[in-house]
Amino acid sequence: MELLDLVKSAKESTYKLQSLSSEIKNKALSEIAKNIEKRKNEIFEANDKDLEYSKELLNKNKISVSMFNRLKLDENKMLDIISGIRDVIKLEDPINKILAQTELDDNLILKKVSCPIGLIAVIFEARPDVISQISSLCIKSANAVILKGGREGENTNKMIFEIINESLNDIKEFPKNSVNLIFSREDIKNILSMDKYIDLIIPRGSNDLVQFIKANTNIPVLGHSDGICHLYIDESANIEKALKICLDSKAQYPSACNSVETILINKNIANEFLNKLYSLFKENDIKMNGDEEVKKILSDIGKVEDWHKEYGDKEVSLKIVENIEDAYKHINKFGSHHTDSIISENKENIEKFMTFVDSANVYSNTSTRFSDGFRYGFGAEVGISTNKTHARGPVGLEGLTIYKYKLFGNYQIVNDYTTHKKSFKHKKIK
Amino acid sequence: MELLDLVKSAKESTYKLQSLSSEIKNKALSEIAKNIEKRKNEIFEANDKDLEYSKELLNKNKISVSMFNRLKLDENKMLDIISGIRDVIKLEDPINKILAQTELDDNLILKKVSCPIGLIAVIFEARPDVISQISSLCIKSANAVILKGGREGENTNKMIFEIINESLNDIKEFPKNSVNLIFSREDIKNILSMDKYIDLIIPRGSNDLVQFIKANTNIPVLGHSDGICHLYIDESANIEKALKICLDSKAQYPSACNSVETILINKNIANEFLNKLYSLFKENDIKMNGDEEVKKILSDIGKVEDWHKEYGDKEVSLKIVENIEDAYKHINKFGSHHTDSIISENKENIEKFMTFVDSANVYSNTSTRFSDGFRYGFGAEVGISTNKTHARGPVGLEGLTIYKYKLFGNYQIVNDYTTHKKSFKHKKIK
Repeated sequence: MELLDLVKSAKESTYKLQSLSSEIKNKALSEIAKNIEKRKNEIFEANDKDLEYSKELLNKNKISVSMFNRLKLDENKMLDIISGIRDVIKLEDPINKILAQTELDDNLILKKVSCPIGLIAVIFEARPDVISQISSLCIKSANAVILKGGREGENTNKMIFEIINESLNDIKEFPKNSVNLIFSREDIKNILSMDKYIDLIIPRGSNDLVQFIKANTNIPVLGHSDGICHLYIDESANIEKALKICLDSKAQYPSACNSVETILINKNIANEFLNKLYSLFKENDIKMNGDEEVKKILSDIGKVEDWHKEYGDKEVSLKIVENIEDAYKHINKFGSHHTDSIISENKENIEKFMTFVDSANVYSNTSTRFSDGFRYGFGAEVGISTNKTHARGPVGLEGLTIYKYKLFGNYQIVNDYTTHKKSFKHKKIK
Repeated sequence: MELLDLVKSAKESTYKLQSLSSEIKNKALSEIAKNIEKRKNEIFEANDKDLEYSKELLNKNKISVSMFNRLKLDENKMLDIISGIRDVIKLEDPINKILAQTELDDNLILKKVSCPIGLIAVIFEARPDVISQISSLCIKSANAVILKGGREGENTNKMIFEIINESLNDIKEFPKNSVNLIFSREDIKNILSMDKYIDLIIPRGSNDLVQFIKANTNIPVLGHSDGICHLYIDESANIEKALKICLDSKAQYPSACNSVETILINKNIANEFLNKLYSLFKENDIKMNGDEEVKKILSDIGKVEDWHKEYGDKEVSLKIVENIEDAYKHINKFGSHHTDSIISENKENIEKFMTFVDSANVYSNTSTRFSDGFRYGFGAEVGISTNKTHARGPVGLEGLTIYKYKLFGNYQIVNDYTTHKKSFKHKKIK
């Protein structure tokens, strides 16, 4: 099918999708989980083909080791994929919820009702688990979806998609073309211009991918590019406990977007703290870079070249700050508004930090690594957003919904209200 | 001040704004209302200058009569401006509300807290009341704002802005440059490229203005361009009552975005209904256009040239449809997803219409003209949005907010959870 026809057909399916009951949607998800389980060997075989192809890319340095690892499926990842789908079944249906209700006048009832966004395009790299995760979330939230995976995972993606699609085809209530997979790189450019049909784009991949998409479309984009997260160690911090947070925030998974890139240290504890951090990070093979002031204390570490830099590795920037104001000004200027945490025993400073730091996730006395949909209890996540509109932070099912206003009347006309024959009651019911 | 410096300074003010108490914000609004009341004659004088200038534009056909009328202030409009500000004082503070709260684990509390979006740019034409209305809403929601009005209202806008600004300057807690007015047409282009600083753009004006802005910026845009609203007259409709809805939806304020442009009529009642509508609309000087089938019944009316057309005047398109499916397919294809209403006594058809019509506002048995923030009981509105993300339909204070996640910990680390030393509780508190 031509791309435009596919997109139009997917858009067409959105109208029918929103009328599906929770039972039908959950039945679809349960069929998908069952069939993936049944046909997992076919998926492993497809994955082997992709790994073979990607090994060449890896040898030619065209993809990174971490991308190669993310591509590889094993029994554990397969179990996660299957249980991930079953987890979505357990989540509350986000559609057709009455979010607010007002009696505007007698027999004139306004309901604000949650509904799907419509047609969502997801552009992702590697990670074949994205396809089942995002498809499940879209099915549950009654959105149609167009998935575009990278060349490196093409066989795996095709196989998982085929299983999803066959499962949906077996359920007669499900409209055709509600879940779609496209392959060609050329298609991305075309997708970005289809603002007439596509309501939202979710990129899951490198900074470059996200930035390219944001710069080249008028369609709303949900996601984040950089993950430049900060820890601020206040002078009142419990130093031993703060050190553990530093280690967890950096070393627990250094390439994650929510791992820390810069640690800001209050000048009044800088000497003691930096010396202890130095030993701890040396022990854990974490490379340190500092500004002038830090290097006066730790002379043999590197120099920070760019506070905007996301290392994505066991490497960190260190900076001494005068006070809490200095700290949040640095974070608002150089951070990516993703996740930032203060370590402090001073309640006033905690309050200031959490108010003035303009990030999706602001923490006190805990690790930046907590910023994640599963850890937040959302059950599954679409991704993490640093947008200032629609959805911010880890985005679960709710971020795939919007609302419509339904007004149920009894032949009232506006003219009666503007001419003061009648007046509104505006009685809030919910 | 140079535009970029002004924008940077406005952005700077956003961090302080979010910490202001409700009392301070309401005090600011009450000062503004008081000072506008006190200095209303200065505003009238400025408005006279604008009217003089605009009369020339009107004579040269460079602006429309309706634009000229919207520009003109009188005592009634002035009272509306002042009471509009006082109404915003009465609204609940939308900031710092706890939207959700979860105990992730002992002493690990996640709060989803409402907060301002940040820096908002509003680009509007004529209507000097926009400046006080939007400023009030931004102050209440702790957003900084940059206002760009049209040349035609420059003196009035300057005077109202001066009063707002002086009122805010008298309140020491208020950060500088939180409300700003810019003048030059050239500035619009520059504003659109400042996605690093500006978080949201709200255009209030013609379709052309909104479409130009949407096509030329990466900043999220809140609003609507077209207002192509529909009525569908079902075969079960009470015909006499349906006729009244038709008249109200078209004639009550023909240039409003929520007035009806196309009336779809079920074929089984077409003959009776169209003949009655014809008499009623003739009486009220409403021009009618129909498709082939309609013209077989009403031979002397015009022919519909374009179902996408927004008349914005006492003119309407008429079409006969087979059934409810035909009706919502036409609406989803040709409508602008703004406001559409079904007139019917058939509950099943009402349910179908409200589910399948993909519009911000879907009605049964009432006039499309109800789609408005004041009528919905929001107290004030920023505008009406046909977006599928963030805010849809009439947008009040809530549409000017987003949220951040605040996580309050006690030195927990993620590694304890991924290694199963600890497990999450995910106890929903709110």
